[in-house]
Amino acid sequence: MSGLTHIGADGAARMVDVSAKPVTAREAEAKGRVVITPETAALIRDGQAAKGDVLAVARIAGILAAKKTGELIPLCHPLPLDAVTIDLAVTGDAVEITAIARTTGRTGVEMEALTAVSIAALTIYDMVKAVDKTMRIEAVRLTRKTGGKSGDFSAP
Amino acid sequence: MSGLTHIGADGAARMVDVSAKPVTAREAEAKGRVVITPETAALIRDGQAAKGDVLAVARIAGILAAKKTGELIPLCHPLPLDAVTIDLAVTGDAVEITAIARTTGRTGVEMEALTAVSIAALTIYDMVKAVDKTMRIEAVRLTRKTGGKSGDFSAP
Amino acid sequence: MSGLTHIGADGAARMVDVSAKPVTAREAEAKGRVVITPETAALIRDGQAAKGDVLAVARIAGILAAKKTGELIPLCHPLPLDAVTIDLAVTGDAVEITAIARTTGRTGVEMEALTAVSIAALTIYDMVKAVDKTMRIEAVRLTRKTGGKSGDFSAP
Amino acid sequence: MSGLTHIGADGAARMVDVSAKPVTAREAEAKGRVVITPETAALIRDGQAAKGDVLAVARIAGILAAKKTGELIPLCHPLPLDAVTIDLAVTGDAVEITAIARTTGRTGVEMEALTAVSIAALTIYDMVKAVDKTMRIEAVRLTRKTGGKSGDFSAP
Amino acid sequence: MSGLTHIGADGAARMVDVSAKPVTAREAEAKGRVVITPETAALIRDGQAAKGDVLAVARIAGILAAKKTGELIPLCHPLPLDAVTIDLAVTGDAVEITAIARTTGRTGVEMEALTAVSIAALTIYDMVKAVDKTMRIEAVRLTRKTGGKSGDFSAP
Amino acid sequence: MSGLTHIGADGAARMVDVSAKPVTAREAEAKGRVVITPETAALIRDGQAAKGDVLAVARIAGILAAKKTGELIPLCHPLPLDAVTIDLAVTGDAVEITAIARTTGRTGVEMEALTAVSIAALTIYDMVKAVDKTMRIEAVRLTRKTGGKSGDFSAP
Repeated sequence: MSGLTHIGADGAARMVDVSAKPVTAREAEAKGRVVITPETAALIRDGQAAKGDVLAVARIAGILAAKKTGELIPLCHPLPLDAVTIDLAVTGDAVEITAIARTTGRTGVEMEALTAVSIAALTIYDMVKAVDKTMRIEAVRLTRKTGGKSGDFSAP
Repeated sequence: MSGLTHIGADGAARMVDVSAKPVTAREAEAKGRVVITPETAALIRDGQAAKGDVLAVARIAGILAAKKTGELIPLCHPLPLDAVTIDLAVTGDAVEITAIARTTGRTGVEMEALTAVSIAALTIYDMVKAVDKTMRIEAVRLTRKTGGKSGDFSAP
Repeated sequence: MSGLTHIGADGAARMVDVSAKPVTAREAEAKGRVVITPETAALIRDGQAAKGDVLAVARIAGILAAKKTGELIPLCHPLPLDAVTIDLAVTGDAVEITAIARTTGRTGVEMEALTAVSIAALTIYDMVKAVDKTMRIEAVRLTRKTGGKSGDFSAP
Repeated sequence: MSGLTHIGADGAARMVDVSAKPVTAREAEAKGRVVITPETAALIRDGQAAKGDVLAVARIAGILAAKKTGELIPLCHPLPLDAVTIDLAVTGDAVEITAIARTTGRTGVEMEALTAVSIAALTIYDMVKAVDKTMRIEAVRLTRKTGGKSGDFSAP
Repeated sequence: MSGLTHIGADGAARMVDVSAKPVTAREAEAKGRVVITPETAALIRDGQAAKGDVLAVARIAGILAAKKTGELIPLCHPLPLDAVTIDLAVTGDAVEITAIARTTGRTGVEMEALTAVSIAALTIYDMVKAVDKTMRIEAVRLTRKTGGKSGDFSAP
Repeated sequence: MSGLTHIGADGAARMVDVSAKPVTAREAEAKGRVVITPETAALIRDGQAAKGDVLAVARIAGILAAKKTGELIPLCHPLPLDAVTIDLAVTGDAVEITAIARTTGRTGVEMEALTAVSIAALTIYDMVKAVDKTMRIEAVRLTRKTGGKSGDFSAP
């Protein structure tokens, strides 16, 4: 037994069968961070005050990406989503990203929340890369999960 | 002047006009890391010896994602890609990911390489999450870039 | 309170949470019109009699677009669709388009019906633009809606 | 001869052969309008002053849609885009939409500009529909076109 | 009456209304074959023993394609999938492909299984075409179907 | 050396580097067949005479699929297409499908033509499956190829 649910007894990748699992309300929260220079942080914050566009574009990109998760991550189940929200906070040297996804379904939405964080981060990177060549995307991780038989989960 | 090329004089997001830029050969390399437990590393490494599937699935997901970059990152130009390769190395507590993208075009392929790394990382996360709840995706960044008028770039 | 359900208390765009809404049968009908010259109308009508292709292509494009609504309209919920039909009628100086969409779900299908009409209209435009440079797409609107807590709606 | 370039001699739909056409710089501008109540116009305008989100979301949706034109309109050629901009102006009873698309290629970008206008209009409709049930999308048309052998075109 | 459920009384294509059908568990199995030379079979089999990549890539492509069925086949209903598995066996002169798809829904998953087989076959073709110009994809067909009111079905 | 161009020296799948290949005009023709009962053939032929929809839908699905090839076949290069045509002929017990694709680029369009044939075949299957449970898709193969350094190719 491999312990990896996406690998069958014969070692081949497969989409795990969830047909026997109950339909329940599920929620997942993921976080991540784009580390930037203080100058870039100021630029985004000022831009934000005046027009909001860098963060607005990243938020939309993250929400759209959550809906594409099943198409991007090969063994993910396609899921209807009940809600997606993306929160973006500019600190002195980073943009902190939090995504929350909800579904009523047979599998969890961890990958949807994590995909939303990752694509929002890449979108910030894209919009700022002309002025900051040393950005890094850090600490993309699951921070909370509720619903489903594997029990609730919470981490910093 | 905002310094942000994706924001016009009126503060609105736009796809930057590249029609006057020359068509040149361009290459970008990006890296990132999925931090895992030593037990998970062993599981992937053994799985790898026997069947290769976790890493094979991540590699394919990354290559496919590079081709979708223009659809995921709102202000990216859609680009033909000449080549994409993804290298995956399992260390004691991480999977190290390197993606290289090439094009012959008017804009660079940094976002393609970074998107390939991010989606390969998420795919590893997805396949291993049943046995490791504390994974993190770290240090997603551009490590090399050649071609284009802004000059070559290299970083660790 | 902004009155706009897609904007949170903090002014940020979000996908509205529908998890507490009941699953019900919902239907929406939308209409629109491509205004063309009498010569173009005759050309489509004759084409139609002999081969049907202009209208057949537009019908298929509209049905496919209804299925892509959640991917095109950023804050739309992805929805399973139970049925989509597109009706096209060529008058003396227009193609009149009617789309009906049905789902069994937590949110309505207005946007699916409207997207089907819009893309069917653009497809007609594309196929006829070589002979008619003055076309316009007019009066794209919701004409009927049933199911859901906001009550039924009907308009000309 | 049908006069319709997308219909072959046998009456079947086809993607027209452009391989013999020269690669030239091409630009197209399209316009359209979402007709709304004065109350909705005020709501969007105020929302705009404070946060910009309704218009920001519509702008991003339009830009992304321009890049998907070849996938939405069956007989359109897939095209690399050099630039896309979307301008949105709120008047007393409408949102006026202008989209400009540019390419360096073998076919024009009329459909890209028109698709951007249509999806931006639908996105505004989606975000405002909870407070305004009588919206209409009107006057979606090509207003300017340059490049390509069929000559320049301009209309109000 | 035409007997073709996707064609309305007026002869126009439509997505058949399934809203009155019950939600039940459904499964479909499809098979197909890529006929290759004995040399190519040996090459894939050896490659398989050492690295698994040709078959691993085909398997992932087939699973991803099953999830895209509603977007590829115009009149198919978009469906959540509970499970997809793809089995690949290399014989002396062919790769035999079997795909199984499962859903809990209002319509069957025949097309999902058949699409998975077809795209897995094309992916094998793509990876091997540099060394074998005479490949053929043969015998793509439904071999089993359970669930739904039309009754179970089984064929060799 | 594996002989398989999509597999690197380390056994990992990759998108082959085509940046050094010249841009040339390329064309590929592929064929395939949906084997049906004589009754189904009559039904499609009559339907064809009256309305054309089964074949029209299959033709559009095939053209759209050709444009999605790079997204469906993991290691295919995304390509601009200059032309796609699909020819469908109903015989006594089959629908014969021929697809021709053209590009001006660095790689061939074999996979585009083969993907168009496969998805057109699946679309016919989908529209007729309610009345014919024993259909098979047979003989999907490349029949002609011109342009590119590997030389021209022709097969029955």
